[in-house]
Amino acid sequence: MTQRRVTVLGATGSVGSSTVDVLAGDPESFAVVAVTAQTNAAKLAEIAKRLKAKRAVVGDPSAYEDLRAALEGTGIEAAAGASALDEAAAMPTDVVLSAIVGAAGLKPTAAAVRAGHDVALANKECLVCAGEAFMDLARRHDANILPTDSEHNAIFQLIDGTDAADIGSYTLTASGGPFRTWDAEAIASATPEQALKHPTWSMGAKISIDSATLMNKGLELIEAHHLFGIAPDRLRVLVHPQSLVHAMVTFLDGSIHAELGAADMRRPIAHCLYWPRRSRTPIKSLDLSAAPSLSFEQPDPERFPALRLAQEALRRGQGAATVLNGANEVAVAAFLGHRVPFGSIARIVEETLMAADREGLLQVPASVEAALVLDGEARRLAVDVLERQ
Amino acid sequence: MTQRRVTVLGATGSVGSSTVDVLAGDPESFAVVAVTAQTNAAKLAEIAKRLKAKRAVVGDPSAYEDLRAALEGTGIEAAAGASALDEAAAMPTDVVLSAIVGAAGLKPTAAAVRAGHDVALANKECLVCAGEAFMDLARRHDANILPTDSEHNAIFQLIDGTDAADIGSYTLTASGGPFRTWDAEAIASATPEQALKHPTWSMGAKISIDSATLMNKGLELIEAHHLFGIAPDRLRVLVHPQSLVHAMVTFLDGSIHAELGAADMRRPIAHCLYWPRRSRTPIKSLDLSAAPSLSFEQPDPERFPALRLAQEALRRGQGAATVLNGANEVAVAAFLGHRVPFGSIARIVEETLMAADREGLLQVPASVEAALVLDGEARRLAVDVLERQ
Repeated sequence: MTQRRVTVLGATGSVGSSTVDVLAGDPESFAVVAVTAQTNAAKLAEIAKRLKAKRAVVGDPSAYEDLRAALEGTGIEAAAGASALDEAAAMPTDVVLSAIVGAAGLKPTAAAVRAGHDVALANKECLVCAGEAFMDLARRHDANILPTDSEHNAIFQLIDGTDAADIGSYTLTASGGPFRTWDAEAIASATPEQALKHPTWSMGAKISIDSATLMNKGLELIEAHHLFGIAPDRLRVLVHPQSLVHAMVTFLDGSIHAELGAADMRRPIAHCLYWPRRSRTPIKSLDLSAAPSLSFEQPDPERFPALRLAQEALRRGQGAATVLNGANEVAVAAFLGHRVPFGSIARIVEETLMAADREGLLQVPASVEAALVLDGEARRLAVDVLERQ
Repeated sequence: MTQRRVTVLGATGSVGSSTVDVLAGDPESFAVVAVTAQTNAAKLAEIAKRLKAKRAVVGDPSAYEDLRAALEGTGIEAAAGASALDEAAAMPTDVVLSAIVGAAGLKPTAAAVRAGHDVALANKECLVCAGEAFMDLARRHDANILPTDSEHNAIFQLIDGTDAADIGSYTLTASGGPFRTWDAEAIASATPEQALKHPTWSMGAKISIDSATLMNKGLELIEAHHLFGIAPDRLRVLVHPQSLVHAMVTFLDGSIHAELGAADMRRPIAHCLYWPRRSRTPIKSLDLSAAPSLSFEQPDPERFPALRLAQEALRRGQGAATVLNGANEVAVAAFLGHRVPFGSIARIVEETLMAADREGLLQVPASVEAALVLDGEARRLAVDVLERQ
């Protein structure tokens, strides 16, 4: 069996570390081409040595000297700067895992797509803020986009080998967040400390708040729409507090197929890295007889208006999703800084969407770059809205 | 779209009636070739008229006159007798649904296979008592065997489009039966009335008892082995009292795919009839948010020894499964007749297997006919065992 060549963009973050784990666990199957990070030269150098990568690249030029020094004598090339990231993404390889967080991931990921590489995608912004342009780019360059987060990876697995015409609806599950059983008043005045207590796993602050508002699931609906070309009215959300079922597909004849597994990011990452094959991994498999019972409930649009806003933005079209995402980032940061109450997050997003509509901004961005410009506009409008609160 | 031609063997029973329902609900998609029954001429004639079948056949020659009279003037041909059943099974068609109950189903189903027809299989005996010979026949005649019971249909759906080399194990779910929470002593002295109270649905007496002993699930493991060529050590059972998940497949990388649906036989039947496509059906789809929580537990081999016996027979090879099945029929009939206690069912099966082994009977039957002979031998031995109790 020939080795698969892999490039990892954003190797030092949370998804990056899980990816390194999978790659290091099976050196016979993988040959690592390049690994990148934004600033953490020491950790990146260690990863590059562990994976025997050809090249290591830091985005921040001021970290170059540390990286070069740490790699001295290893034969691993060191490079730095934004264009060096894009170059690393385009180096000949079989699959690029894109785990750079935030809008910074857009350009290097687009460079990988332009080089025609398959992309295992962990970066949300490529789809949420620039979905149409990004997927169009992938189609034009014949690049497969393989989703690495558990919900979309589950859909990707479940529809493999099926005909989309046979499927009636697609369901993403949501843990429901820490406020699942709270009443509307208590939610409205929740503190950042309360919102950061995720019931199922610990995550970064931004995504924890998005999980508490259910905006996270709304953004995932937008991603699913772009990844799989699913019409908005076929996308559903079910709250599933145990987070063991990640997604479901309902066929026309009523059969439901579900994907289940323990909460371990390495499983969907491994699925993408080995795809279209599967491989035994050291990940502990889920023992359903030792697991809690699996329960499901409808999300409540009254108590969790962010989900409704995301669904409306999805129906409205791409510009609205870009604005929704940018406004949400501003609102969440304000909440985490104790400047607005929890209940204001959705309100700020909604008012920003209305303001953007009045300014005629809700058009489909024509390119990944145009989406970044609209993202900036949305943040500016959201700050205006915020200051009027 | 061209119509699919369908033949229904055993149209008047429980599975047959569900099949008639599916076919009658979509006359544009299906053209019914032949329908058969053993004795119920009046009901068969009604079905033949409803489905506009070309031919109706009763197995029992003494029912011919009633059938002929009931079909007078309709243009539907009437026929009777064992060879007429085989002929009907072999008539040009696209799929034969075989729902004849018991060993009587073997010959007509084999006739359909010999004609090269795809067979939607609801008859257990073809696989449990003659699995190797039957599947070999299907391979030689290039006939697809499509399983219609919910567990095997679920596996069939889940592995479609996958590579068997990527799958680690296959799990059938069991409701656990009415004695799931009972202790061993109470189970040993349970009455037929208690055993017939199935927690999830009402079924015939024989299958209800098999569900209470878990022999039903053991027989399904044997069926799954033959249907899909699954090695015995990759087949698992999980008790799942809600009976909403029908089967699961666990991939090497730890992902589990499950098939779910409300308990409605028409769903897997429709899946087979429309296969390889799917179609919208009038079957109510499962609303997980309104369903009970889904729980899973390991089956207890101490309290439910029949499951262990079936697993041992599966590992031992085909002759043992044939004997297991024949002996179980005798033991269940004796229990239903209040002649032996519930706890004796598994004991009779086990002693019959040992007796058959001593007589050198546990060879692979070379043909469907040889399996029928061994089935008879097993019943004779079981009666001997029973009389010694």
